[in-house]
Amino acid sequence: MRFLKLTLAYDGTNYVGWQVQPNGISVQESLERAWQTITGESIRITASGRTDAGVHALGQVCSLCTHSTMEAPVMLRALNANLAQDITVLNVVDAARNFHAIRDARKKTYRYRIQHGGIPDVFQRNYCWFVPQRLDGSAMRSAAAHLVGRHDFVSFQAAGSERGTTVRTIESLVLSETPHERFHFIEIEITADGFLYNMVRNIVGTLVQVGQGKHPPQWLPSVLAAKDRSAAGITAPARGLFLVRVDYDCDQTRSGRPTA
Amino acid sequence: MRFLKLTLAYDGTNYVGWQVQPNGISVQESLERAWQTITGESIRITASGRTDAGVHALGQVCSLCTHSTMEAPVMLRALNANLAQDITVLNVVDAARNFHAIRDARKKTYRYRIQHGGIPDVFQRNYCWFVPQRLDGSAMRSAAAHLVGRHDFVSFQAAGSERGTTVRTIESLVLSETPHERFHFIEIEITADGFLYNMVRNIVGTLVQVGQGKHPPQWLPSVLAAKDRSAAGITAPARGLFLVRVDYDCDQTRSGRPTA
Repeated sequence: MRFLKLTLAYDGTNYVGWQVQPNGISVQESLERAWQTITGESIRITASGRTDAGVHALGQVCSLCTHSTMEAPVMLRALNANLAQDITVLNVVDAARNFHAIRDARKKTYRYRIQHGGIPDVFQRNYCWFVPQRLDGSAMRSAAAHLVGRHDFVSFQAAGSERGTTVRTIESLVLSETPHERFHFIEIEITADGFLYNMVRNIVGTLVQVGQGKHPPQWLPSVLAAKDRSAAGITAPARGLFLVRVDYDCDQTRSGRPTA
Repeated sequence: MRFLKLTLAYDGTNYVGWQVQPNGISVQESLERAWQTITGESIRITASGRTDAGVHALGQVCSLCTHSTMEAPVMLRALNANLAQDITVLNVVDAARNFHAIRDARKKTYRYRIQHGGIPDVFQRNYCWFVPQRLDGSAMRSAAAHLVGRHDFVSFQAAGSERGTTVRTIESLVLSETPHERFHFIEIEITADGFLYNMVRNIVGTLVQVGQGKHPPQWLPSVLAAKDRSAAGITAPARGLFLVRVDYDCDQTRSGRPTA
């Protein structure tokens, strides 16, 4: 058996999310179909995490286990030739034995994009959250600083989620205001050792309420302390969220020839 | 009567182009319907130029003549509330008497975006031309320099076009290579006193053939001299083209209160 690591980008607009669903086409189903077309194998492909409907990926990582002896660069081209234009495989490499995209992930980075004030940019309508009023980026940055580090993020977890520990460590949370001629964007990039369900979207919804002046930056410590979803702000819409990168230990991937 | 100048942005992906067509929805039809909804008037709205199916606009300019006394900022909000998310009115101002978006245009700027080499960026699939091989940007820039100034551009006009003079003046043609982490883009921005039908797309298709090494930069003077469409390169696809800006004499627009 051979273990492979695939990196892919997708525009989530037209998908029901990563996971196979009865109500529409998923990214997983599209990828598994393309795999079957090129190898004849009907296998399950595992992603580092499920992205919801409308969420995008710049660097989703998947693992799979195959009998195919096709060389990785050939596989890359063959997969892309069999995928719709809104999903592309960026990289295929042979991975360490038993490599697993979820279990072996060490940290992940998400980016969330907001357009605030003015008139919506037509070209960004599926790739950001449009908030009609201008936001106070400095206040949002002060608020965000309270979230960096090791905390119980249960207040930012979707209500009803079933998980073990809700303690996670946010390694960095960077808020940048990108100046355009006509449009105002804020991008929030978060790197953590793991994320609870809807954690990024709930953090963003909360920070936006600070940016709107509804709460001061000092609200954040009390939201964390409440350990209650209802203490935090709203859930930001899916379309502004991008899975940017998933990091693994170096020895999880290896270059070299495929193992037959 | 009152003369208005509208500036609009649109994502041309889902439209048959600017002009009303029997085979699908046009930007013009969408805008005229929104106008009728908010004012009750069934009028013709004129754009600075027709954009083809799939061509985008960052700053298309339109003119119209109305009896409405609605204030311009109210009109702006009302139009946007009645347009699909892929068309937005950026600005509405009262214009000089008899202002006409085609006749009064002094110059226009178009931008063309190319992604070259590597793997297509899924998020740019409708907003650029993907050329599989890496292009020689320096050779393309040298070639482009031959086009700046006053020339007969008939070699770059779509075959079968009916026009008067085919002499135009390109004021500037700037080719920039935008470095991304993973993807390579070239943007070509052209400002001229007017453009023949398909002129930008034919110039771009010709420059790309230089970038691919099929012709040297010195090919361009002979293409111009041939005065024959078949001497130039291919027509670049519509999806990479953006109408960026249309310039008018300053006195064509005036601020101030609407004239009833």
